Amino acid sequence: MNGLKTSIQPLDIEMGQQVRNYLDTLTKPPGSLGRLEELAIQLAEITSEAFPVVSPAGVIVFAGDHGVVEEGVSAFPQEVTVQMVMNFLNNGAAINVFSRQIGAMFEVVDIGVAADIAAESVVKRKVRYGTNNFCKQDAMTREEVELAISAGYERAENMIQQGCKCLILGEMGIGNTTPSSAILAVLSGQDISKLVGKGTGIATEKIIHKQEVIVRALTERKPDRKDPIDILAKIGGLEIAGMTGAMLAAAANRIPILVDGFICTISALLARGICDSASDYMIVGHRSVEPGHEIALKLLGKKPLLDLDLRLGEGSGAAVAFPILQSATLMLKEMATFASAGISKE
Amino acid sequence: MNGLKTSIQPLDIEMGQQVRNYLDTLTKPPGSLGRLEELAIQLAEITSEAFPVVSPAGVIVFAGDHGVVEEGVSAFPQEVTVQMVMNFLNNGAAINVFSRQIGAMFEVVDIGVAADIAAESVVKRKVRYGTNNFCKQDAMTREEVELAISAGYERAENMIQQGCKCLILGEMGIGNTTPSSAILAVLSGQDISKLVGKGTGIATEKIIHKQEVIVRALTERKPDRKDPIDILAKIGGLEIAGMTGAMLAAAANRIPILVDGFICTISALLARGICDSASDYMIVGHRSVEPGHEIALKLLGKKPLLDLDLRLGEGSGAAVAFPILQSATLMLKEMATFASAGISKE
Repeated sequence: MNGLKTSIQPLDIEMGQQVRNYLDTLTKPPGSLGRLEELAIQLAEITSEAFPVVSPAGVIVFAGDHGVVEEGVSAFPQEVTVQMVMNFLNNGAAINVFSRQIGAMFEVVDIGVAADIAAESVVKRKVRYGTNNFCKQDAMTREEVELAISAGYERAENMIQQGCKCLILGEMGIGNTTPSSAILAVLSGQDISKLVGKGTGIATEKIIHKQEVIVRALTERKPDRKDPIDILAKIGGLEIAGMTGAMLAAAANRIPILVDGFICTISALLARGICDSASDYMIVGHRSVEPGHEIALKLLGKKPLLDLDLRLGEGSGAAVAFPILQSATLMLKEMATFASAGISKE
Repeated sequence: MNGLKTSIQPLDIEMGQQVRNYLDTLTKPPGSLGRLEELAIQLAEITSEAFPVVSPAGVIVFAGDHGVVEEGVSAFPQEVTVQMVMNFLNNGAAINVFSRQIGAMFEVVDIGVAADIAAESVVKRKVRYGTNNFCKQDAMTREEVELAISAGYERAENMIQQGCKCLILGEMGIGNTTPSSAILAVLSGQDISKLVGKGTGIATEKIIHKQEVIVRALTERKPDRKDPIDILAKIGGLEIAGMTGAMLAAAANRIPILVDGFICTISALLARGICDSASDYMIVGHRSVEPGHEIALKLLGKKPLLDLDLRLGEGSGAAVAFPILQSATLMLKEMATFASAGISKE
């Protein structure tokens, strides 16, 4: 983790300006492609390329378990984490479908599932068998947080070396909206009742219970708002830390990060907490139904591309949004200019 | 045009219900894929298929000119229409780029450009050399409207016979936000000042002028709100009529219509005016910056998929939105079920 802060370079504003000027020479009224034009500029600033490329995307799904599920905060039993990992490996989950659709590289990392996963094809970086129940003790040690961040960093760097041009991160971990909401409460200072929703689908009385669990954890653990590692150690999750590390790697390599929904945005906030300029490399794919997401997006200062009432996770919303980034780069690369097409300007 | 009203069948609600039930067996919390699930259901109702297919899309761009440009309502001179048609034929426009991205079939129809287009590759269905200036006389005759609608109908049927599974319609016609805003004023009964924006980019004083031109035309022409053909004849446009006809053909063939921005939504409203059930076959791709679009969308009763501040036309926003329809159909076809994946349910 040493040296991470300095290894993320500032955006290439000059390249962004060059692309901004070029966009006005293309055969369309100036600015008429709205956010596609803004994306093209941001991608040029991120990649330092006049004609940035985002394909192929790379999808890494981190899976980890959460001790806090023993408090009854989730609609699904913990064994679903490992069952869904098998589903990812067998190409049956939503993120598999959308990854294939966009031609993405894909891998699943066991960074902390609470059971052994026999399959060969899972990437084995298990830091521990799930976190502790953070109502009773710290979720994990600082050292374990750093191991998880490093594992995420390494997997992202590996995928970037294999040719990935845009990083999409997904997560699987039954119960992980609870640590995510707890982290958001710490980072935002907002009342927990505004942050906690139904996760993947729990009833109202369960939401109140979930809020109580989080309040109890925050009272007991007292994480330091200024220290992302402390937050992750006390109330975090292994897949949340893994995504954080992967984002730092993408930013350090000038690769755009297409952020998914609520949990992924929490990792994005933590990555920015570790290195402020990391968020310059982020684009948010979609607005989740999860009520905390809006607050997390405001903290991150980003406006999502899609608003399709998704709340699945796995990186699915980001993958569905990815073709918009492709549209932005293809517009830049393939459209004729007024001069080349011989068209009268305004 | 005879018999069109009865040739559009009702949606297959039973098939929609079947898909709704099937969606809850897929390996995701029920409803967690939000609008993708709604789209899958709507596409099943439209196509009468349990596993609807939307690829390949087909893009038809209709080009026509507008006599009203002599009133100075557009930022671009009229010759840009023919120049842009050449740009479409040379694959240099935004809609070409996005059509390639989504693997769409593509054609450009000269339905009323005010000049001869020498190129072989344009589809020649010129009804007349642009419309009349509707400040001074009717834009065209009823017979010409019907010819334009029939030409659009025929081109869409042709593309559907070639295998197109989802129809995207685009338009090119310098000045065509003016007839579109005039039509919307008639259909909505709203004050013109709420409907008229900057089109592809005109200044504030020009907006006021454009509003005055429309008020003058409406006062002089008095189109019958209940008669889409009368509206098109008095204050319409040839490409607007062509798109209307193409939409009727798609609906009659149970092919989903992915509606583009402001002008395309006006054609959608007229198609519904001709045959009420036509709008059941429509999905709106994006929300345009053009202020009238929001009012047109409310009239149509549809919520767009994207909101990316686009205002180009050509079908570009619909093409950018198309991958979302693909995501919805692939989700349905390719995701594992809880049973097949051996996953515990809630």
